[in-house]
Amino acid sequence: MKKLLATALVVTAAATALPAAAQFAKPEDAIKYRQAAFTLMGRHFGSLGAMANGKAPYNAATAASDADVLAAVHMLPFRAFGEGTDLGKTDAKPEIWKEQAKFKQASENMDGEMTKLVAAAKSGSLDQLKAAFGPTAKTCKACHDHFRKD
Amino acid sequence: MKKLLATALVVTAAATALPAAAQFAKPEDAIKYRQAAFTLMGRHFGSLGAMANGKAPYNAATAASDADVLAAVHMLPFRAFGEGTDLGKTDAKPEIWKEQAKFKQASENMDGEMTKLVAAAKSGSLDQLKAAFGPTAKTCKACHDHFRKD
Repeated sequence: MKKLLATALVVTAAATALPAAAQFAKPEDAIKYRQAAFTLMGRHFGSLGAMANGKAPYNAATAASDADVLAAVHMLPFRAFGEGTDLGKTDAKPEIWKEQAKFKQASENMDGEMTKLVAAAKSGSLDQLKAAFGPTAKTCKACHDHFRKD
Repeated sequence: MKKLLATALVVTAAATALPAAAQFAKPEDAIKYRQAAFTLMGRHFGSLGAMANGKAPYNAATAASDADVLAAVHMLPFRAFGEGTDLGKTDAKPEIWKEQAKFKQASENMDGEMTKLVAAAKSGSLDQLKAAFGPTAKTCKACHDHFRKD
């Protein structure tokens, strides 16, 4: 187990060194991939939101499990907004490619708040979850408002 | 960091206590969710396979990152095969609901091999990755052959 944990630390460090854009064979593969990541994010973020907002009973194990998925997938979409992925079956707005620095900043804002939310959701404290949920939701909304079609 | 790791252990233990089937508002939500999880699995499993089979250069950081995603998502689909999710836009075969014990066993076989693959992919050793990839792929294929439409 000690070895697993040591490995986990190495992995965490390595993950930050990954390139932002992975290779996809076809633009539609990238679109499908980022939408899949968003689907899982929506589901597990929604689950935390329901607990934070009192619409579902708080369950620490569920919150921790939601957090695990969010930790693993929340930055995956941003590997999949490469060239040529602006067309097709996507709600992505052209602004993503026109305002890349702003888009990157928006993803980093979300990453920062999501990291806090993940820790809060694993803390076993509903109060911490409540405190972290709103600021994270704001970063989702800010990006959607500007970069996603209605 | 120590606290984070301790939390990770608690989370791992808690995740195994989660119910197999989560609640979805509509059957199509469950179908979309499990397909999203499979999309991410396919992508990151494929990435490990390309490295294991010499079709892509081995990169320990990429392998570890793939492993992180696989660890988080590989059992998610099995929360989403509840009643009423056999119809609609799905390649799931009726056998899933007719042979539930067999389907569960197939998911557990995959879980077992995937857990080994995740460890191998985080080990930094291409040889370990190669050794673990094939047996995992076999559990994917066994389930697809019997429970997924062509």
